Amino acid sequence: MSEIIPPRVLKGFRDSLPEHEISRKHIQNVLEHTFELYGFVPIDTPVLEYTEVLLGKGGGDTDKQIYRFKDNGGRDIAMRFDLTVPFARFMAGHGAELYLPFKRYHMGKVFRGENTQRGRYREFVQCDFDIVGIDSAAADFEILLLMARCFENLEAPDVGFHTAHRGVFTRFLAKLGAAEHSVEIMRAVDKRSKIGEHEVRTLLADRIGETAADELLAYIRPQATNEATLAMITELAGGEDNETRRLNTILEWSEKLGLSDRVVLDPSITRGLDYYTGIVYETFLRQLPEIGSVCSGGRYNDLASLYTKQHIPGVGSSIGLDRLMAALEELDKLPPAGAGVDVLVLCMEERLIGRYHEIAEHMRGTGIRAEVYPEAKKLAAQFSYAEKRGIPIGIICGAIEAESSVMNLKNLETRTSDDQLSLAEATQKARLILQRRSHQNYNA
Amino acid sequence: MSEIIPPRVLKGFRDSLPEHEISRKHIQNVLEHTFELYGFVPIDTPVLEYTEVLLGKGGGDTDKQIYRFKDNGGRDIAMRFDLTVPFARFMAGHGAELYLPFKRYHMGKVFRGENTQRGRYREFVQCDFDIVGIDSAAADFEILLLMARCFENLEAPDVGFHTAHRGVFTRFLAKLGAAEHSVEIMRAVDKRSKIGEHEVRTLLADRIGETAADELLAYIRPQATNEATLAMITELAGGEDNETRRLNTILEWSEKLGLSDRVVLDPSITRGLDYYTGIVYETFLRQLPEIGSVCSGGRYNDLASLYTKQHIPGVGSSIGLDRLMAALEELDKLPPAGAGVDVLVLCMEERLIGRYHEIAEHMRGTGIRAEVYPEAKKLAAQFSYAEKRGIPIGIICGAIEAESSVMNLKNLETRTSDDQLSLAEATQKARLILQRRSHQNYNA
Repeated sequence: MSEIIPPRVLKGFRDSLPEHEISRKHIQNVLEHTFELYGFVPIDTPVLEYTEVLLGKGGGDTDKQIYRFKDNGGRDIAMRFDLTVPFARFMAGHGAELYLPFKRYHMGKVFRGENTQRGRYREFVQCDFDIVGIDSAAADFEILLLMARCFENLEAPDVGFHTAHRGVFTRFLAKLGAAEHSVEIMRAVDKRSKIGEHEVRTLLADRIGETAADELLAYIRPQATNEATLAMITELAGGEDNETRRLNTILEWSEKLGLSDRVVLDPSITRGLDYYTGIVYETFLRQLPEIGSVCSGGRYNDLASLYTKQHIPGVGSSIGLDRLMAALEELDKLPPAGAGVDVLVLCMEERLIGRYHEIAEHMRGTGIRAEVYPEAKKLAAQFSYAEKRGIPIGIICGAIEAESSVMNLKNLETRTSDDQLSLAEATQKARLILQRRSHQNYNA
Repeated sequence: MSEIIPPRVLKGFRDSLPEHEISRKHIQNVLEHTFELYGFVPIDTPVLEYTEVLLGKGGGDTDKQIYRFKDNGGRDIAMRFDLTVPFARFMAGHGAELYLPFKRYHMGKVFRGENTQRGRYREFVQCDFDIVGIDSAAADFEILLLMARCFENLEAPDVGFHTAHRGVFTRFLAKLGAAEHSVEIMRAVDKRSKIGEHEVRTLLADRIGETAADELLAYIRPQATNEATLAMITELAGGEDNETRRLNTILEWSEKLGLSDRVVLDPSITRGLDYYTGIVYETFLRQLPEIGSVCSGGRYNDLASLYTKQHIPGVGSSIGLDRLMAALEELDKLPPAGAGVDVLVLCMEERLIGRYHEIAEHMRGTGIRAEVYPEAKKLAAQFSYAEKRGIPIGIICGAIEAESSVMNLKNLETRTSDDQLSLAEATQKARLILQRRSHQNYNA
């Protein structure tokens, strides 16, 4: 072999080492299990799509952030940068094979060539869940309920689900005579936590005058209770209508389902430039406000208009898994990855490897994760391997023990031994140690 | 919205619809669970890498099949075309953070721009598992054992694990005076099932003469028993050595662990142009010989020599998940995806949605997958939805039932009803129906 190639990873990309990957799989499993309890089914779409499909005919501003190139057949293709656009294309293409309402979840890698300065990655995992083909309060509420259950099942502490209504906000802006400035207004409101209310007021006053700016700041300020906030925005928007009534219904159901400690009607949530038309959601970890929303979404009135004349309303939300994992880690709420293995059968003599695998197989049959050290190295090296991996139990079986079908079990954490056990006894003992351990972890 | 963009998917790519995706997740879960029982830990690597890392300094012939392009920073990058090369780069880069032997599995999408004629896809999922940092019979055997357990746990019928040894084969070729033609010889041998033995003999005779060709055909022909085959190749290769002894040990352990009905010493397995140096494996579904090997691998003596001077031997195997799924489907061994949901709480009145979610939540708490129909549509439409999705149980709760906290449960398969049940009774009844059903499926 000639010159060594440095084993570099591209900037903005990273490997997932076992500990990280075990945690990631755990989180994904919890989320998948939750989605399935609510009747959501999984789909997947390709990583590569026609650029036209991802960006529309025009292309637009976003194309600098996407990985776009020509394939060997000269096609203009690109890597998906979110899971929403491929889902829209999916619904337009498979409508006839599906039923409505269609409730799907989708977890997958997406790619953006954007600036990596703020700890962002260019490859990251998104997790989207949507109910499409229906426009009802029940669907809006179900997404909110599911968001709450996901974070509950992840044991995330102190989570706030902030919700608002883009339709009501739009009606309010029209009443204010500021409809034409809605884009700039939402941009300014979104900056509130970064630049402070005073600065936002200045931005707004420049655009729509001081009186309107003050009224707008009043609109986005949550009151002491959700009821009071709702009453306030209803009045400011010009009175009750179907949209304020739907918000009211969703808040009532939230209370009935025990979510009123977590669901906050927060009119400052606008979801900026997104295509939402009804309810919008953002999710905050109250102990980590600085990381922003970890699960956001809302109702859109037409998912797939780019690809079909069929009208497909929907509502959904999306979790950025990498950001969520980082947050859970910071909150010390990532379950310990552990060794990934419970028992090491040490290799005393290589000719006994068959016996060692018999022992391991018997234990695996009872659900114990067992491995056989694959070489008759010095015992010190094998114990050091067990220690590095954090394996709690060792099985030692030399020629004499093998002869009489017994083995010694070593608790590698307490450094105690049980000798001359039959395979059944050793398995039983291992199970006891593991149960006690998992009970301790549970109570820790 | 102006012109409609056709919702096309690129040639060689496909969407995964819920039924397919549920099956894929099931298979992945079975495999992951199996790997974990054997102490294998998961890793992941980026989809995009430096082209130099994937192809080496030269680039070589393969570059036409890979997705390669310049990113916005002008870097020459490419999408991974397998999981082996990224793993080599991973080991070279993370060696210091890991322990050896390192046993990892990795499931992920890989991309090849190759011809799609033979039902191949340009995006497909591979599943690799390897033990690196050790060169021992025990590791060689463990991969074989794990292959056997994976297919057992997938309930794949009639599987044959064919194994051979590249080192013994190389010694045989040297003795035959044909070492310099080894590449062409392995190519010819690999074509045996396609072009037939006669044609292979012609190819070989052209290259190494008729006598040598006949001896070679004798070498690659399995005998009645593994012992006889081993004795034959040992003799043809010039007698016993460490490599034939290792093969013998692996066959003995296979018998001890109950695999002798499935493990076949088959000297015609060469793994063609791959970088294997020791044992090699291929896996055949005997009822579907035409699809070729569904899990292949072997021992390599230096995984990461491109990226590090550290010597990392290893052994591993790889499953092509898409091909395996297609095969299991053909064998009718894909578990039925089912509805993905057990109970539909019908929506009689929209104001009762909160109550419907209470009912559903209670059932979910016992592990039942329940959904609430999100709109007060006509009952016929809701039943038709339940039927399309194959949901077996319906809960009907109108205003009168809600008033007295009862509900009616409809078994949508037998079309029988239980009326006026409390929530606890309805949940209990639903559990009974589902247990009976899963028992029936189990026995089917």
